[in-house]
Amino acid sequence: MVRNISVEAINQVPTHLRGVELVERKGLGHPDSVSDGIAESVSRELSKYYIKHFGKILHHNTDQVELVGGQSAPKFGGGVVLDPVYILLSGRATTTVDGERIPVKAVAIKAAKEYLQSNFKHLDMDSDIMIDSRIGHGSVDLRDVYDTTKHRANDTSFGVGFAPFTDTEKLVKGTEKFINGEMKKKLPAIGYDIKVMGYRQDKTINLTVAAAYVDKYVKDSNEYFAIKEQFQQLVEDNASKISNEDVNIFINTADKDGDKITSHYLTVTGLSQENGDDGSVGRGNRVNGIITPYKPMSMEAAAGKNPVTHVGKLYNVLSNKIAEHVVKEEGGDVVEVLVRIVSQIGRSIDNPHVASLQIIYGDNVDPSKHKKNIEAITDHELEHIFDLTQGFVEGKIPVF
Amino acid sequence: MVRNISVEAINQVPTHLRGVELVERKGLGHPDSVSDGIAESVSRELSKYYIKHFGKILHHNTDQVELVGGQSAPKFGGGVVLDPVYILLSGRATTTVDGERIPVKAVAIKAAKEYLQSNFKHLDMDSDIMIDSRIGHGSVDLRDVYDTTKHRANDTSFGVGFAPFTDTEKLVKGTEKFINGEMKKKLPAIGYDIKVMGYRQDKTINLTVAAAYVDKYVKDSNEYFAIKEQFQQLVEDNASKISNEDVNIFINTADKDGDKITSHYLTVTGLSQENGDDGSVGRGNRVNGIITPYKPMSMEAAAGKNPVTHVGKLYNVLSNKIAEHVVKEEGGDVVEVLVRIVSQIGRSIDNPHVASLQIIYGDNVDPSKHKKNIEAITDHELEHIFDLTQGFVEGKIPVF
Amino acid sequence: MVRNISVEAINQVPTHLRGVELVERKGLGHPDSVSDGIAESVSRELSKYYIKHFGKILHHNTDQVELVGGQSAPKFGGGVVLDPVYILLSGRATTTVDGERIPVKAVAIKAAKEYLQSNFKHLDMDSDIMIDSRIGHGSVDLRDVYDTTKHRANDTSFGVGFAPFTDTEKLVKGTEKFINGEMKKKLPAIGYDIKVMGYRQDKTINLTVAAAYVDKYVKDSNEYFAIKEQFQQLVEDNASKISNEDVNIFINTADKDGDKITSHYLTVTGLSQENGDDGSVGRGNRVNGIITPYKPMSMEAAAGKNPVTHVGKLYNVLSNKIAEHVVKEEGGDVVEVLVRIVSQIGRSIDNPHVASLQIIYGDNVDPSKHKKNIEAITDHELEHIFDLTQGFVEGKIPVF
Amino acid sequence: MVRNISVEAINQVPTHLRGVELVERKGLGHPDSVSDGIAESVSRELSKYYIKHFGKILHHNTDQVELVGGQSAPKFGGGVVLDPVYILLSGRATTTVDGERIPVKAVAIKAAKEYLQSNFKHLDMDSDIMIDSRIGHGSVDLRDVYDTTKHRANDTSFGVGFAPFTDTEKLVKGTEKFINGEMKKKLPAIGYDIKVMGYRQDKTINLTVAAAYVDKYVKDSNEYFAIKEQFQQLVEDNASKISNEDVNIFINTADKDGDKITSHYLTVTGLSQENGDDGSVGRGNRVNGIITPYKPMSMEAAAGKNPVTHVGKLYNVLSNKIAEHVVKEEGGDVVEVLVRIVSQIGRSIDNPHVASLQIIYGDNVDPSKHKKNIEAITDHELEHIFDLTQGFVEGKIPVF
Repeated sequence: MVRNISVEAINQVPTHLRGVELVERKGLGHPDSVSDGIAESVSRELSKYYIKHFGKILHHNTDQVELVGGQSAPKFGGGVVLDPVYILLSGRATTTVDGERIPVKAVAIKAAKEYLQSNFKHLDMDSDIMIDSRIGHGSVDLRDVYDTTKHRANDTSFGVGFAPFTDTEKLVKGTEKFINGEMKKKLPAIGYDIKVMGYRQDKTINLTVAAAYVDKYVKDSNEYFAIKEQFQQLVEDNASKISNEDVNIFINTADKDGDKITSHYLTVTGLSQENGDDGSVGRGNRVNGIITPYKPMSMEAAAGKNPVTHVGKLYNVLSNKIAEHVVKEEGGDVVEVLVRIVSQIGRSIDNPHVASLQIIYGDNVDPSKHKKNIEAITDHELEHIFDLTQGFVEGKIPVF
Repeated sequence: MVRNISVEAINQVPTHLRGVELVERKGLGHPDSVSDGIAESVSRELSKYYIKHFGKILHHNTDQVELVGGQSAPKFGGGVVLDPVYILLSGRATTTVDGERIPVKAVAIKAAKEYLQSNFKHLDMDSDIMIDSRIGHGSVDLRDVYDTTKHRANDTSFGVGFAPFTDTEKLVKGTEKFINGEMKKKLPAIGYDIKVMGYRQDKTINLTVAAAYVDKYVKDSNEYFAIKEQFQQLVEDNASKISNEDVNIFINTADKDGDKITSHYLTVTGLSQENGDDGSVGRGNRVNGIITPYKPMSMEAAAGKNPVTHVGKLYNVLSNKIAEHVVKEEGGDVVEVLVRIVSQIGRSIDNPHVASLQIIYGDNVDPSKHKKNIEAITDHELEHIFDLTQGFVEGKIPVF
Repeated sequence: MVRNISVEAINQVPTHLRGVELVERKGLGHPDSVSDGIAESVSRELSKYYIKHFGKILHHNTDQVELVGGQSAPKFGGGVVLDPVYILLSGRATTTVDGERIPVKAVAIKAAKEYLQSNFKHLDMDSDIMIDSRIGHGSVDLRDVYDTTKHRANDTSFGVGFAPFTDTEKLVKGTEKFINGEMKKKLPAIGYDIKVMGYRQDKTINLTVAAAYVDKYVKDSNEYFAIKEQFQQLVEDNASKISNEDVNIFINTADKDGDKITSHYLTVTGLSQENGDDGSVGRGNRVNGIITPYKPMSMEAAAGKNPVTHVGKLYNVLSNKIAEHVVKEEGGDVVEVLVRIVSQIGRSIDNPHVASLQIIYGDNVDPSKHKKNIEAITDHELEHIFDLTQGFVEGKIPVF
Repeated sequence: MVRNISVEAINQVPTHLRGVELVERKGLGHPDSVSDGIAESVSRELSKYYIKHFGKILHHNTDQVELVGGQSAPKFGGGVVLDPVYILLSGRATTTVDGERIPVKAVAIKAAKEYLQSNFKHLDMDSDIMIDSRIGHGSVDLRDVYDTTKHRANDTSFGVGFAPFTDTEKLVKGTEKFINGEMKKKLPAIGYDIKVMGYRQDKTINLTVAAAYVDKYVKDSNEYFAIKEQFQQLVEDNASKISNEDVNIFINTADKDGDKITSHYLTVTGLSQENGDDGSVGRGNRVNGIITPYKPMSMEAAAGKNPVTHVGKLYNVLSNKIAEHVVKEEGGDVVEVLVRIVSQIGRSIDNPHVASLQIIYGDNVDPSKHKKNIEAITDHELEHIFDLTQGFVEGKIPVF
């Protein structure tokens, strides 16, 4: 198969050298990320069910989750969730195969609950969450089901990706990962709803962090601010491991000392969804984990899309993978890679309409020395595009 | 306080001597009973919350539960729930007290789940049930809240009760209690959705029992019918302890031998709600646990009504209690007691518009010898009507 | 066909001569009646659809409607609905016939809206009502569908009916019919949510009427009470046409003069559902339009049940029809008739297990002169039981 | 006020001269656009209500709409909607002002219905749509409400915009506007769910159009394809008015001749939501009406956001307005303008952290001759940012 791969050198100031950069990450516990996480876990569990029972992943797109915020009354020492969050699952899935019926809704709500339970430990699943499903149905005759060796695109769609991350991008993503990861053990008072905004002007990077506290771990305003100092220090230390640039960290900038609860970012569960914040699939991070308004992005809501045939999901992830692969192999000569893959209805997924790479090379680099290898890398990745499916099913490829 | 108590001897053939009698009980796992059970457990947990936090039970009526049946695919050896049951809680409760907000919905959905979990052990709470709440809100100023020493009726309502149970009534109720109680250990294959219909013509009592099997305990049609034989024997033995009348037991009369699943009453969870049977509060058993179309009944949906001021709930239970008390004390002379209590808006609940008792005495009994004592019993029970509240809150007084 | 018909004379004081009688009617606009009305209209429109497209009524039971009350802010001169009422339709219906799909949900929600719109003219269908449907599905193969000439009971069920109405019963039903009928033109200020409770003690009948006003027709408290006087007079005049007994009319007994809105029974739409009152199918009037705790009743929720094969629906209506027929033909000799019809699984519906009539004859009447004719009437009505179906479909037979 | 405005000339190949361009528009009837349209109409009607009753727009964000696709059975000559679309409104709004309650849900569902009714004339509002609301509540004390002369940003957010449109962008947007506008009179058979994808490679622009037909206007496959020819011609004629480039139009590329319904893009209502396509706010077009993966975009879901204080909504629209203004005034010298505005918590909205413009000038243009005027334009637009509010409320500023 000869694939239509276009590798073009562009003459452009690389992102990290431009005057301004803006990067955002909605953390694991942001309502939009919670929605993404649920959508993807539903797709994952359905895929496993289909594989187990029918040997292949059947058609589904569970990329619709609407999370309606609850009501809570946090207070120092531990408050209470008043109204549970309401989560509506929708989308479509194959519910009947050759007359045999599939427990789609049962699998879906179980997947959603398990996702919440295993990621957000302060949630009381019995009282803080209501899950509803309006997932639609479809039926298939197994004989007609796609032959996985020749999936064809059923839409004109595209994917976008780039590499490497700038320091601002690394800091934004790395800070959230740190807070919701390693740091949790040291500072259990910091919850899951973390939002990090990175704004670089010339050499200075400002990281604004909004972080929900878990109220039961904070006895009063004094302790709140004491924790905040530790928090600040830990984030700063972590940032210094990621970047050598000048980094300023601003945490919960609206906080005010005093007795007023509303002057602190307190929650019962570590999640702002408990008190009025709604969420929805596809409105948050792109598949590379960040939002980059200064770089091309796809609007695709990848979470919950089926991992076998959904071009948008596959091409967005693959674009980033190709870009990273190129950067890794082509070392210092390649400064920035931008990848776009465009499908065409009816063409095999591994043979897109075009895979187009734009390369910003370092000064004095001769593009012609790299073009061939970059094409080969791209061709190789396209050839192995269906390996992604397994990665999605195992939860090894993040999509938000 | 002089209460308006009317005790009247009536000249009527007692129920058990009439030609025909019809009695029904919807068992614990019938969708209407499940709805009743949830509604009452929500009221109970809210009452406890109010007592704990405010020293008294605040206004609520959570007597609205709509249970929308799911879809399942039972099979010998164990099938699967396809679509979970959807349960909508509604009604009203006090959500704000002197500006403090109360976790009504959180308490309610937790109560509902705990009720289901502790009563129906084959339910997978993660995949078989979705609970939603649209319970409405109200606010109170504690200074205005009712003084529990002088609750007043806010409706013209009434309660109805009788005693003693006829053999048919005892058999219907006792059979379901046996199947869903003691018998479970011996025959785990028999589920929770049990319906017992008793039809007496003259001296012969026919008990028709519909009982859902739990599919994982039954490997094939042969075992199904083998269990049925044991089941029949156990129910017959139990019936013989309850009554000396001629009792015929008919179990799952639509069963047919053979491989067709639909010829057997199989379920995954022991509950027919899993496969299309809907339920609703107040459509099943009366507060005495049975439905008696041959005797006066109230249409009141007692389950979920607030246990302090709701006349319908209190008077229905008290009517039965008075009737039982009279029968117990007045021994063999009183053959049947029918009690009705009528409220009047604005009158204190323990001082109804009228408490009217109709007594069928035994032959040759002089009513005048009993009247005074019966009045005293009635007066005593009315005086202690507010003791019922505690019984409801502790779950010691059944309402369906 | 020789039917099992039992006609028995009983020696009992007829209802109207007993000391006490209690009768209730929940009017057209009571939330339970609204639920019943919607459920029945859904069944009616589905039946018409099935007949039109398939020549026969296919299986359905849409007897589950949960009405969750809204929130409103009535005021003199016209207030506003704040939160719409939420109405959930459930139950089951045939959605696929020989592979052809049926617009069950579309027909159902349209039927519900048309019912509300045509009965309650102050409802703004765009802002006051939200209708949702979780009606379940079923499929049939037309070849297997019941042959309408030999419907068989699929449940052990029963119906109960009586005739004639006592004066109290006539007054309760007739008063609501008058208020929601003829009187509307004269007093448009009186809404649809009317509840009438009749309590007779010896010769005195007290009618307690709770009637929602429509706020836009009432400019202040003075006008409210002026209307109340007219209202009282009209109801009294109407009562005097129904009965010669002593009748006392009590209207909205909790009203108090003054500026407080809550001291008047004001609504925006004439329906208390707008402000927190929930409703549900089967909790209100029996098929004869009233609730009679002093007489045998069935717990059956008839509204929404399928009009072809549902024994409970058919037998309850037929029992009343037989009782009326007997009273009409047997003139003054028959004082009261009580009818019960019991089905048996597998028996043809027009050939019940037993149709049992209890007759209270007038003094000095010889029962043997009537027995034969009463049996013939009963037999005739059973023979024509399937005529009821058409009456239900055309909306000519009320069920609540 | 001295605003932080940065105007920078960049040395970059303008979009229309690059090798590849990809642009998409989801038309008015695409489920994501329907969701956007509803969300914005709810915000608009709430804003009007607040202005009318309180003189100012109170806090709300109704940017959450989940549209769950229905089921339909289209056929030549006219099919039927089987299951209505379910639309869940959520978000937050001020429901109480100084104790006075606001009909938020009533206003919201009415706005949603009116939006649907006035835009999609083939919808039967009684049977094709179910609208539900879980919009959350908030209360305010009017004295605390923002003084509209000094709104402050409560989030670090940003907006992105550009001008002018390339031919590809104009063609994509203009084609959909034509099909859903002027063309409707000539070809009523073409529905509302239109998706246009523009893909330019060098000088050739391929427009792929997916357009739902309305089945009742098409009697068979022949007529379908005859209409398609006219359709193709009309779109081509329209395209030739927009651009002189080589444009290829591809319409409904999956169509196949023959009797199979599924080989044609037929719908009953002109909307694919009727048959399984879900939608959600913020997943479709950006505020300039298109999706441009080859240009910077914001992920902001503008539709439904409050039009007074929501930085994301205001800055995205204003960025485009500034870009257009600059292009208009600076004529041929400015080839492309890219605008980004970044807020800072606590700063007045009309005084952002930075408004940064990147300008691609024409060859041989001296940037210094334009800089000052461009700054002045930007300053002017920022000064008048609050004029946007009125535009949103009147529906004159599109957001998708």
